[in-house]
Amino acid sequence: MSETRTRGRRGHARTDRQAARRAPLPPELRPVRPGLEGGAYKPLTDPEMRRIHSAALEVLENIGIANAIPSCVRRIEALGGRLTEEGRLLFPRSLVEDTVASAARNFLLHARDPQHDLDLSGTRVHFSTAGAAVHMVDAQTRAYRDSTLADLYDISRLVDTLDNVHMFQRSVVARDLVDPREMDLNTCYAALAGTRKHVGTSWVEPDHVRESVAMLHMIAGGEKKWRERPFVSMSNCFVVPPLRFAEDACRCLEVAVEAGMPVLLLAAGQAGATSPASLAGALVQEVAEVLAGLVYVNAIVPGSPAIFGTWPFISDLRTGAMSGGSGEQAVLMAACAQMSGFYDLPGGVAAGMADSKLPDAQSGLEKAYTTVLAGQAGANIVYESAGMLASLLGCCLESFVIDNDMLGAVLRTIRGIEITEQSLSIDAMRDVCIGGPSHYLGHGQTMELMQKDYVYPEVADRLSPKEWVEKGSRDMIEKARERVQLILSSHYPEYIDPALNQKLRAAFPIRLPTEIMNPASKRW
Amino acid sequence: MSETRTRGRRGHARTDRQAARRAPLPPELRPVRPGLEGGAYKPLTDPEMRRIHSAALEVLENIGIANAIPSCVRRIEALGGRLTEEGRLLFPRSLVEDTVASAARNFLLHARDPQHDLDLSGTRVHFSTAGAAVHMVDAQTRAYRDSTLADLYDISRLVDTLDNVHMFQRSVVARDLVDPREMDLNTCYAALAGTRKHVGTSWVEPDHVRESVAMLHMIAGGEKKWRERPFVSMSNCFVVPPLRFAEDACRCLEVAVEAGMPVLLLAAGQAGATSPASLAGALVQEVAEVLAGLVYVNAIVPGSPAIFGTWPFISDLRTGAMSGGSGEQAVLMAACAQMSGFYDLPGGVAAGMADSKLPDAQSGLEKAYTTVLAGQAGANIVYESAGMLASLLGCCLESFVIDNDMLGAVLRTIRGIEITEQSLSIDAMRDVCIGGPSHYLGHGQTMELMQKDYVYPEVADRLSPKEWVEKGSRDMIEKARERVQLILSSHYPEYIDPALNQKLRAAFPIRLPTEIMNPASKRW
Repeated sequence: MSETRTRGRRGHARTDRQAARRAPLPPELRPVRPGLEGGAYKPLTDPEMRRIHSAALEVLENIGIANAIPSCVRRIEALGGRLTEEGRLLFPRSLVEDTVASAARNFLLHARDPQHDLDLSGTRVHFSTAGAAVHMVDAQTRAYRDSTLADLYDISRLVDTLDNVHMFQRSVVARDLVDPREMDLNTCYAALAGTRKHVGTSWVEPDHVRESVAMLHMIAGGEKKWRERPFVSMSNCFVVPPLRFAEDACRCLEVAVEAGMPVLLLAAGQAGATSPASLAGALVQEVAEVLAGLVYVNAIVPGSPAIFGTWPFISDLRTGAMSGGSGEQAVLMAACAQMSGFYDLPGGVAAGMADSKLPDAQSGLEKAYTTVLAGQAGANIVYESAGMLASLLGCCLESFVIDNDMLGAVLRTIRGIEITEQSLSIDAMRDVCIGGPSHYLGHGQTMELMQKDYVYPEVADRLSPKEWVEKGSRDMIEKARERVQLILSSHYPEYIDPALNQKLRAAFPIRLPTEIMNPASKRW
Repeated sequence: MSETRTRGRRGHARTDRQAARRAPLPPELRPVRPGLEGGAYKPLTDPEMRRIHSAALEVLENIGIANAIPSCVRRIEALGGRLTEEGRLLFPRSLVEDTVASAARNFLLHARDPQHDLDLSGTRVHFSTAGAAVHMVDAQTRAYRDSTLADLYDISRLVDTLDNVHMFQRSVVARDLVDPREMDLNTCYAALAGTRKHVGTSWVEPDHVRESVAMLHMIAGGEKKWRERPFVSMSNCFVVPPLRFAEDACRCLEVAVEAGMPVLLLAAGQAGATSPASLAGALVQEVAEVLAGLVYVNAIVPGSPAIFGTWPFISDLRTGAMSGGSGEQAVLMAACAQMSGFYDLPGGVAAGMADSKLPDAQSGLEKAYTTVLAGQAGANIVYESAGMLASLLGCCLESFVIDNDMLGAVLRTIRGIEITEQSLSIDAMRDVCIGGPSHYLGHGQTMELMQKDYVYPEVADRLSPKEWVEKGSRDMIEKARERVQLILSSHYPEYIDPALNQKLRAAFPIRLPTEIMNPASKRW
């Protein structure tokens, strides 16, 4: 990791030292890691999960999904599905159950740097960004402004340095690119320029997917290498809830699946608006929709890697506005994580979607109870878990750094408490209490566990009030701001080598200025 | 409730209307309530809990507890315990197990207003304040100042209005009272003057307990009425970890138990300092200590109401400072909640202890992941869950209001997702999707569940960025500040009637000025 971080920065001794200080602990010393096993929190009982499953099968068999594109109808009909007179595609129970049995599971989501591969098996938990925010939030001035491609690149290289954010799905829309083709291509490019963690993004037209796949082949070193380790996944909203296929998204889905790209099958209804107001009903509808997507994907290429993306959003029913930071949202997403576990399928949910417009106390609490419950419920990927504000409309650099600390603590809770003869510590108590010093401060066990068992936050403050006042009474925004500036002014990774970069720029309309990707740009 | 809130305010029409607007929803309409059942989060497996129990029994039988006072030694020896040559009191396994079997369980913790009684059975969850902070924090100026008796009274009447804080244990030390007797008495009085929720407090000397009990008899209307519904509990740190009795606290404990006062048996070691650095070891030590306390209480008066108060605190091992907001703390307290559940004893843990010095993002996230895990693990009382900052050294009025919103959301997650034929919503989906409007906005189910199933925060912001900017781009501190001022300038409950108050002031050195307890004081 430290090698890639400093590669290309030779001759910048100060930058090198800063990079080294930011280098993560060696994996064996880290108290928390990607892929710790969750599952200790079970909001649903087993019989309840079976009832939800059974209701979803009933919905698919009797209500079905509207607006299937012809290629989808053809594929599903070939497998026993049926189009009703109202134009709804019905999925027989057995088809869904066979698909669940044979679908891809326990697969790796690859990263360009293999040490960032995500093992989506069992209840292993990873945290990822995501989103399509249209605003960047200045935490200090409280201003909202349009997000740009340069913001996306900055977020990518910022996330590259955050140990507890394990994957980068694009967080903001590059609103400075008005051409949809350029936006799709450049979003993919800018994300890959900033990090070698796994990248997720989305596309609006199948041609854009094809062109991006051509770019990905070049970056991978050929189609074969891409297909061996596809390091970009497609976030695909293949349904417009309630129970309608999204036609353009389905066309993009087909291209991705055929290109060997993993897909996040995303059903994002909003309870009380596009899905039932009853939390149980919202869950049933989303499960039904994602199961339909899973059948579809497996009808295109059997065994394709797909992530079970039940994302039922909550509305504030007084106004109809989304409330991603509500308690209802927290428990509903955790239940979704349990449902993908019920199917033993890789599951991705969303948490960390604060309603607050700023990284303030509201944002902190909304992010924490949603992410900790999603993680404890064993979601393989918790998307949206860093950086997002304003119910996904805003994205904030300081929030990423703050949320990284939060996710470290959340991961520590997921790791749990190891119970062994030694950890029970009866001998340590005897040493200390009987003829000992009556405290554990210098005890061998304390020294040994200090690094291995305890997570130390990077920006969160643990000073006494006196020291804190002496050091300027700073709040979390001020500390996070300083850290963002330190990282973004020094971390310019060269993850696309110059020769390749020239070729990419010759072949595709890359709009991220080369000078921005250079420490001499002095933007930070 | 609205009756008691406005009692004594006749002639203050404006204040009455404000009070009415603050009046809670009728219980049958509330989406969340005190005593919702937790337990969906289980950080420990059943075999792990048995190992912890077994290790705790071994500690009590072989290492024992030092510094037992003579009356304690006498009582425990009479039941089969033994004092070693090193002066450590050993507790035979069978004595501990018999005590656990016969100890008081499933009891009510009474409030002066019976609708605030806490049912400490099963995994029913309640949130309470607590603490002995020595500072009040001004969230706006960031100043820390000494806390006073007037602060304690203000906090009590503030908490009185917060629906999701179910009990008031004193949060701050009245540092303006230098005489310990006056401090103990007045702390109890000021808490009772501000709320009719259950009150918890502590005392430093047995004589102070006796005098306070005399006061409580007067407030209750006689000893008999007090003993029928004891509405004040003693928070008692009867051990100085590791494994030593605290002598003065034990003397206070004996008086409380004999007076029929429920006790919180509090063992508060600090991992790596006064308890093992290993989380499992910290848990074993605390369980052993609290079991010893339980034997002691039941040796004084069998079947006395006692709350299992395992509070193992976390240290930042780099500095030795407490870190109440860490992930280690969150999972350890949740495990403690599970252990009291293992014994089927009423359990009280601590969560919400932010390390942050301000109600900022750090405070929000630390409070949220600790409280939600403690609640989900089924703690009967989650102490410290509102108002506290700076690892318990600071207390902040704005934080109470912010934390009340958080606890509402946390309670909503604890309520979980009801799975019924109706809630699964297949009929609603059919209505909406087949020949319906393709959305649920006006559906009967949506209207019906809007109030019953959804929690609406009081200060948290759910506006769109545009509206939020138009309304002044306010953060959580600014909104909370406004709400605190509204409540404290209008909510002066008369929970001690004037005639009684005169008698109390004649009998005891009450130091809370009468004018402070009056809206005409214009302090707010």
